[in-house]
Amino acid sequence: LKIVLDGMGGDFAPRAAVEGAILAVQEYDIEIIIVGQEELIKTELAKANYSSDKITVHQASEIIEMGEHPGNAIRRKKDSSIVVGTRLVKEGVGDAFISAGNTGACMAAALFGLGRIKGIQRPAIGTVMPTDTGISLVLDVGANADCKPIHLVQFALMGSIYAEKVLGINKPKVGLLNIGEEESKGNELTLGTYPLLKKTKLNFVGNIEGRDIFWGKSDVVVCDGFVGNVVLKLSEGLASFLMNTIKEQLMTSTIGKIGGALIKPLMGKLKKKLDYAQYGGAPLLGIDGISIISHGSSNGIAIKNAIRVAKECVNNEVVRCIKNSLEDNLSTGDENINEQ
Amino acid sequence: LKIVLDGMGGDFAPRAAVEGAILAVQEYDIEIIIVGQEELIKTELAKANYSSDKITVHQASEIIEMGEHPGNAIRRKKDSSIVVGTRLVKEGVGDAFISAGNTGACMAAALFGLGRIKGIQRPAIGTVMPTDTGISLVLDVGANADCKPIHLVQFALMGSIYAEKVLGINKPKVGLLNIGEEESKGNELTLGTYPLLKKTKLNFVGNIEGRDIFWGKSDVVVCDGFVGNVVLKLSEGLASFLMNTIKEQLMTSTIGKIGGALIKPLMGKLKKKLDYAQYGGAPLLGIDGISIISHGSSNGIAIKNAIRVAKECVNNEVVRCIKNSLEDNLSTGDENINEQ
Repeated sequence: LKIVLDGMGGDFAPRAAVEGAILAVQEYDIEIIIVGQEELIKTELAKANYSSDKITVHQASEIIEMGEHPGNAIRRKKDSSIVVGTRLVKEGVGDAFISAGNTGACMAAALFGLGRIKGIQRPAIGTVMPTDTGISLVLDVGANADCKPIHLVQFALMGSIYAEKVLGINKPKVGLLNIGEEESKGNELTLGTYPLLKKTKLNFVGNIEGRDIFWGKSDVVVCDGFVGNVVLKLSEGLASFLMNTIKEQLMTSTIGKIGGALIKPLMGKLKKKLDYAQYGGAPLLGIDGISIISHGSSNGIAIKNAIRVAKECVNNEVVRCIKNSLEDNLSTGDENINEQ
Repeated sequence: LKIVLDGMGGDFAPRAAVEGAILAVQEYDIEIIIVGQEELIKTELAKANYSSDKITVHQASEIIEMGEHPGNAIRRKKDSSIVVGTRLVKEGVGDAFISAGNTGACMAAALFGLGRIKGIQRPAIGTVMPTDTGISLVLDVGANADCKPIHLVQFALMGSIYAEKVLGINKPKVGLLNIGEEESKGNELTLGTYPLLKKTKLNFVGNIEGRDIFWGKSDVVVCDGFVGNVVLKLSEGLASFLMNTIKEQLMTSTIGKIGGALIKPLMGKLKKKLDYAQYGGAPLLGIDGISIISHGSSNGIAIKNAIRVAKECVNNEVVRCIKNSLEDNLSTGDENINEQ
């Protein structure tokens, strides 16, 4: 099994990529190809005294920056690590691509280079969020700002397979993110989606509200990419706002400082629980191949976790399972619906 | 100044209403009419040894429950506290209505009883959220699941006036909740709204992302009612999830328990900061009259705060200011656009 890793993506490139790759080949029986500026990456490998042949470097001279327009970037920078890395998967040189770089560019490169799974109208980005009972997969978190009911149904289907095959959840509960529990509540999109989800063979548990995400009411949370992106960023923002406020409160008194010192290791554990990077990256679901986005602030451990996730996707044949499930659940001619 | 208060709404009715009313007449120079089942309310007043004539009771025999369909409820229960209370404001008996009951029913009663401000297409529900720098007003948080750009522009305008007149913020910064900072990011709705907001005289600061809400990047956060409702409920859910997780972590060790005991008063302060009830309820903006929703779990203090907010709305002529501002900002014939 060969993983193609973007050496130039994320805030700590190429160091984090190299660290993650070394951790991964030590722990798993895999090979890794790091794509990017060869000299830089080899310098990092040398710094880490790494000499085995399980990690190789593939030259790509260009870098797509975080702020760049995805479509333009992949058209103009043909020799970027994202475009070259995705192509290596297309050509069968590697089995999966991982990047901590520009999410939109990764999605564009995947769409252009690997293509959509036949029948999937809109690939989606999934993200794992911590809950009281474990984790939930939320999708879409940003690939599709405007959606139709059929798109959400396909997100549900792909999310369900990912939750089962990669997160190891048996018969994942699928919830529709909505503004009320009753079937009659919602906007045009969710009102249109609910009856379609009921008809699938998925373990659909109905509408779930914003507050329910963290109580683990469902294993898969389905929403359009606008709402999902707001959910994702709001959660990150609120969590760090709360942690900051707690810290500030503690610093206002001596007793608070003592208490704060005592609870520091426990707060560290909590922080780790809330750290999305720990959960190993966001899959691009619906792509005819494996492409995983790691958080831009990923360190070596987060990259290693993303590699583990990519490995699970390959070993458990997530792409093939989605294809089969499409036939199973939506065998009503939906594969003929053209993309809007 | 006379405030009409729903005696039967919320989890702790009628006790919380009575307690809040007593606190309010002690602190402010106002009179309060509590609407609801006279006997029950008078019993509570007697329990509290209240005998002054600043609080009177107005009989209304029916109660609209939390789960009831708003439209049906206000049609069928003509003698409910929400319908009767709203009518007292319409008739000029009182200056503002406050309820901790069914939000949708309050909105329906307000729309039906008090009507929309001429030119406002969709009244919105605003909610105050705590931020690092103070508070922000988020709207709409649930009245309009599907919106058009002109609706969001009107929310911005009404929110700006409320933030200035009631929250005391000078030249409130208005942000459009979106999935990227650039003008080119968003869904159809936000892409259509951005250029319209730029044309207004509001202090529009551009797009703000989910994570920015809590850092106080804007004083007013504008979004459709679906997204706003998810934001509101997600924030409540995540805050209580985090507090719970911290508590659980602390209970796993002796040192944690000691640390937890030391920081308990500070955590109490934090909880208070996060407690939306402290901020005095959610205004129904765009209604031709004052109607304030208090959180369903409101205690006496929360009700008192809602009464303070209602008083500010009346004293600072929020409704008249919205009318004037409409003429000022949208004097391009928008008042002729019919509701869809």
